[in-house]
Amino acid sequence: MYSLKNDYSEGAHSRILNALVETNMQQTDGYSTDYYTKRAIDLLKRKMECEDVDIHLLVGGTQVNLTAISGFLRPHQAVIGADTSHVNCHETGAIESTGHKVITMKTDDGKLTPYLIQKVVDTHTDEHMVQPKLVYISNSTELGTLYRKSELEELHNCCIKNNLLLYLDGARLGSALASEESDLTLADIANLTDAFYIGGTKNGALFGEALVICKNSLKEDFRYFIKQKGGLLAKGRLLGIQFEELFKDDLYFEIGRHANNMAILLKNAIKERGYKFLTDSSTNQQFPILPNLVIDKLSEKYSFKIERIIDLDNSAIRLVTSWATEENKILEFIEYLKTI
Amino acid sequence: MYSLKNDYSEGAHSRILNALVETNMQQTDGYSTDYYTKRAIDLLKRKMECEDVDIHLLVGGTQVNLTAISGFLRPHQAVIGADTSHVNCHETGAIESTGHKVITMKTDDGKLTPYLIQKVVDTHTDEHMVQPKLVYISNSTELGTLYRKSELEELHNCCIKNNLLLYLDGARLGSALASEESDLTLADIANLTDAFYIGGTKNGALFGEALVICKNSLKEDFRYFIKQKGGLLAKGRLLGIQFEELFKDDLYFEIGRHANNMAILLKNAIKERGYKFLTDSSTNQQFPILPNLVIDKLSEKYSFKIERIIDLDNSAIRLVTSWATEENKILEFIEYLKTI
Amino acid sequence: MYSLKNDYSEGAHSRILNALVETNMQQTDGYSTDYYTKRAIDLLKRKMECEDVDIHLLVGGTQVNLTAISGFLRPHQAVIGADTSHVNCHETGAIESTGHKVITMKTDDGKLTPYLIQKVVDTHTDEHMVQPKLVYISNSTELGTLYRKSELEELHNCCIKNNLLLYLDGARLGSALASEESDLTLADIANLTDAFYIGGTKNGALFGEALVICKNSLKEDFRYFIKQKGGLLAKGRLLGIQFEELFKDDLYFEIGRHANNMAILLKNAIKERGYKFLTDSSTNQQFPILPNLVIDKLSEKYSFKIERIIDLDNSAIRLVTSWATEENKILEFIEYLKTI
Amino acid sequence: MYSLKNDYSEGAHSRILNALVETNMQQTDGYSTDYYTKRAIDLLKRKMECEDVDIHLLVGGTQVNLTAISGFLRPHQAVIGADTSHVNCHETGAIESTGHKVITMKTDDGKLTPYLIQKVVDTHTDEHMVQPKLVYISNSTELGTLYRKSELEELHNCCIKNNLLLYLDGARLGSALASEESDLTLADIANLTDAFYIGGTKNGALFGEALVICKNSLKEDFRYFIKQKGGLLAKGRLLGIQFEELFKDDLYFEIGRHANNMAILLKNAIKERGYKFLTDSSTNQQFPILPNLVIDKLSEKYSFKIERIIDLDNSAIRLVTSWATEENKILEFIEYLKTI
Repeated sequence: MYSLKNDYSEGAHSRILNALVETNMQQTDGYSTDYYTKRAIDLLKRKMECEDVDIHLLVGGTQVNLTAISGFLRPHQAVIGADTSHVNCHETGAIESTGHKVITMKTDDGKLTPYLIQKVVDTHTDEHMVQPKLVYISNSTELGTLYRKSELEELHNCCIKNNLLLYLDGARLGSALASEESDLTLADIANLTDAFYIGGTKNGALFGEALVICKNSLKEDFRYFIKQKGGLLAKGRLLGIQFEELFKDDLYFEIGRHANNMAILLKNAIKERGYKFLTDSSTNQQFPILPNLVIDKLSEKYSFKIERIIDLDNSAIRLVTSWATEENKILEFIEYLKTI
Repeated sequence: MYSLKNDYSEGAHSRILNALVETNMQQTDGYSTDYYTKRAIDLLKRKMECEDVDIHLLVGGTQVNLTAISGFLRPHQAVIGADTSHVNCHETGAIESTGHKVITMKTDDGKLTPYLIQKVVDTHTDEHMVQPKLVYISNSTELGTLYRKSELEELHNCCIKNNLLLYLDGARLGSALASEESDLTLADIANLTDAFYIGGTKNGALFGEALVICKNSLKEDFRYFIKQKGGLLAKGRLLGIQFEELFKDDLYFEIGRHANNMAILLKNAIKERGYKFLTDSSTNQQFPILPNLVIDKLSEKYSFKIERIIDLDNSAIRLVTSWATEENKILEFIEYLKTI
Repeated sequence: MYSLKNDYSEGAHSRILNALVETNMQQTDGYSTDYYTKRAIDLLKRKMECEDVDIHLLVGGTQVNLTAISGFLRPHQAVIGADTSHVNCHETGAIESTGHKVITMKTDDGKLTPYLIQKVVDTHTDEHMVQPKLVYISNSTELGTLYRKSELEELHNCCIKNNLLLYLDGARLGSALASEESDLTLADIANLTDAFYIGGTKNGALFGEALVICKNSLKEDFRYFIKQKGGLLAKGRLLGIQFEELFKDDLYFEIGRHANNMAILLKNAIKERGYKFLTDSSTNQQFPILPNLVIDKLSEKYSFKIERIIDLDNSAIRLVTSWATEENKILEFIEYLKTI
Repeated sequence: MYSLKNDYSEGAHSRILNALVETNMQQTDGYSTDYYTKRAIDLLKRKMECEDVDIHLLVGGTQVNLTAISGFLRPHQAVIGADTSHVNCHETGAIESTGHKVITMKTDDGKLTPYLIQKVVDTHTDEHMVQPKLVYISNSTELGTLYRKSELEELHNCCIKNNLLLYLDGARLGSALASEESDLTLADIANLTDAFYIGGTKNGALFGEALVICKNSLKEDFRYFIKQKGGLLAKGRLLGIQFEELFKDDLYFEIGRHANNMAILLKNAIKERGYKFLTDSSTNQQFPILPNLVIDKLSEKYSFKIERIIDLDNSAIRLVTSWATEENKILEFIEYLKTI
């Protein structure tokens, strides 16, 4: 059984593990006040060509989302997100648990648009309703799709106009930025959002996400929020060491490219067999729509998630590739599919 | 500069790191549903001679405390803790952030007693006040002291009598149980508390704490709480692998003993110099009361925390040892102290 | 200008005000421990032919909803409601503010069905999502519609089957139960729901809602929740006196009938003019769809709320009647409408 | 049995009740957008000689405290209060329920001082601890004592210096300002605090508290907080009408003076009998320390609260007077005491 279930089935990229082993016996200060963390943050700032951001390294994505969003909002303010957004669907109400409503809009491709955002703003008119304040987007989205630079600029402008914050969940930012269809850079994202995070867990790290706070008014006292929500890692160096390794010679993007290449291999082969996809993804998540009989056969050799039931006979499945996906495994999958 | 500031200055015990390296490329299911986690949990249950507990592996201590306590209590219920307790002093109001008051009692040694608990219960009499419900103790305490078995039994009985939950924070349980003055076993703690956690971070792991839920009514749906609070690690295997390594041939207690031995070396040498201590500790935290001039000289070569200002001329400092503390460094410290 | 904007534009029914005046100088205990409150509760229990309920008198509806729902649910549990439900739309995220998600389903008439509920349950399958636990319905709904007894029985059965709680918001229960199309009694509701409230504010009281907790496991310590959420009125007698007056000779239902009669007068006259309605309501809220030109003319003499924009030329307005609505004002409205 | 248990045993001052009766059938807009509320607010601003404040009328004190404090603070910020403060002792953890710790300092007289505040600030030094941000004081305090103008100025300066907010709970502000020992005016309080509330419930109203927000940065969106916490009264006019009546010819202070006069009568008579008091109060709460035998005899004819057990033989009781306290009842009490 080979797993294409997700991008966190293995440990970490060997270079990351090596870095942890090599630094293991050094003494450092705790709680992300060490110099590895400092160096990683300086490096990230250079990579996004921006000194004027605050960067915090945390362990996981739900933790980042709930800590940032609850720290950024006042009690009556709400999040706007796609109905498929991670904060709405797969975080067990973490945002609501901190007191904030997630207002959702239906989309086909997991992407918010200025039109959808404006609709939410226009229907929330007085103090009997929550005040929409933070726009949550993911790049890549939960459905593998991407935001183009022009789209992100439009969202940025829409947020400026409506006095909203723009927050980008980058759990799979490595795959997104490495996509051939992406024209975005880290610098663009730092310019166009108020905060975002660079996902490590799903891009080769053992764990770790780098939250970047771009808007000045959101920076104050943020370490208090991390500690209060249980997210301040005692051995914070572990995060610093990993992020330095990921970015010091662009391993991060190399990993994203490899994962995407493996996904495109899958995509093209499945397409050739005549199957359609739930979305048009150029990133490391592919959602082919397959006959249930085919899915059953695939399940004998591969593990993956059923994403959505399409009709009585067909379902969309989710195939995920990563830094650890071996090309020969993908080729075997493709061969096997041909036999079904 | 050598740090005696805390027990999380280095990475992890080499055996733990090796285990992570060896298993790195294996594929496992995410979110602690993997078989390493299962094996670690089974092993822990055998070690505490108790099948009838639920065990969850989380990343850090504040995370465990806030997830467990907010999951166990109803909205109007409160925690009883020593004024020096970690949840009161060093978690940035994490418990209050989940909606619950921490009622504190002053102590000299960081230990709660049935007398102190009863006093809280007796003064909280109606619905205009919070309802005390969960007794929070630490072993070892934040001041290095220990609970003897008879003391834990008395607390257990006091809690039964008053319909309270007994929760033990075991961030430093390794050092506590390995102390020569301790007569407690893991099995005792599983019998006498409603929930407790076995700390890994401060006892040789990269990170990780094993929460043990003993009382049946507290077990239901606990994974929802972990996920909601951002504590469900994607690569949960990392926790399973570490805890299996820590317990498979009692490395956990070996680490505790080493840390304690280093601490006792310090304690005896400091005592011989005629200094007093804030508390009588047999564990890996020592709190000598030293003249500020001596502290200044020590600070030139060693880093540590000032615990408390005693008077104009003297302060108590905190010296912490760990699995990574080298005996020759301690002997150097002792020699250096003699020269001051 | 005559207001048909809502059912809380005037003070209180004269009998209620008289009761407050007559008892004004009596001394009573505070915080709803007085004998007027006790008598009101006993009376309500007789009216619902059920001794085995707990009844608490609170000031307002949002307060009741947030206190009850946050008291009934554990942290990971969520509410299921219609997208038009008051808790979703008009309470400024009060439920989320206590930590709980409101999962919404689209409806035409503001009514939940077993089908809609089952769909929510079936798509919330594991600990990465909230756990649906409490079904929130309103009777009458926010769109003026009603639940028939058979419908409430079906909801009850659906909840039993799925281990859900059924909660009924009775802000306009007086109008609902007094409707000619209703076959429900207070006793039915006490039998078929786990908790509900009997609204006073919109049915002739100065303020006040009677929360009825039917399910035993939800009763414990409820007064703590009321106090903690700021809902325990110092002069609790004011609530007891009002509810006793409302129910001692069925003034409550008399008021509901009057409000409904006025609404039906409006409904029939508007229907005769050839206009359609957003919903088919037999209660004190009517939602005619009118040309914007007609709405503009009506606005010159009457105040009311625009409920929904239907198309470029037409909107649905909300007309609300109450205990205080004078028949001659309604007749004038009808005459005036004829002239437009 | 005559009650001296509290200042909310009766309904409302007759003038307030009359005002409610006279305006009963007028139609007004809901949720405190009516003109009675507007007029009351304008009047209050004139009384405090300050246009630049926002005033909101709410139903009860706990509601005001929790709504204001949770609205003013960010998630990691905490309240500093006396250990006897209402938010700490008698609101069932309402503040913690909104996520904020209450840091308490021990006092004899229920009054905070700059010294005590500075001590809290100086011991909360980093992000591992909550950030003290709001100083909560009551005037009169829960022990009947008062702040002099110079004391309030010192607290104000201490707060400015430490970047803290100063919040004054005026549940019994009528009695406080009417005390012969008070040199404070409403204008002083508006100048020296960041927010405070003027209590109606304990000073002759049926219910109602006027929250005054002085600091500009705390004003924004406050009505959202009120609605979200369940505190926006549908028939908000009831609050406006009462506060206009209380202040239009200084009935509010007249009531305070009467209550104080009755309290001083009691105080002097008890003092003459040779008894001591828990605190030296010039307001409507008196705390004589009496032999338990005397307390038992008093209990046969009067109801009151035991405030504190002093020793085996003596306790402090709380005697409370109000607008409704009849002088002849007090004289009877005094006579009766002489017979014991």
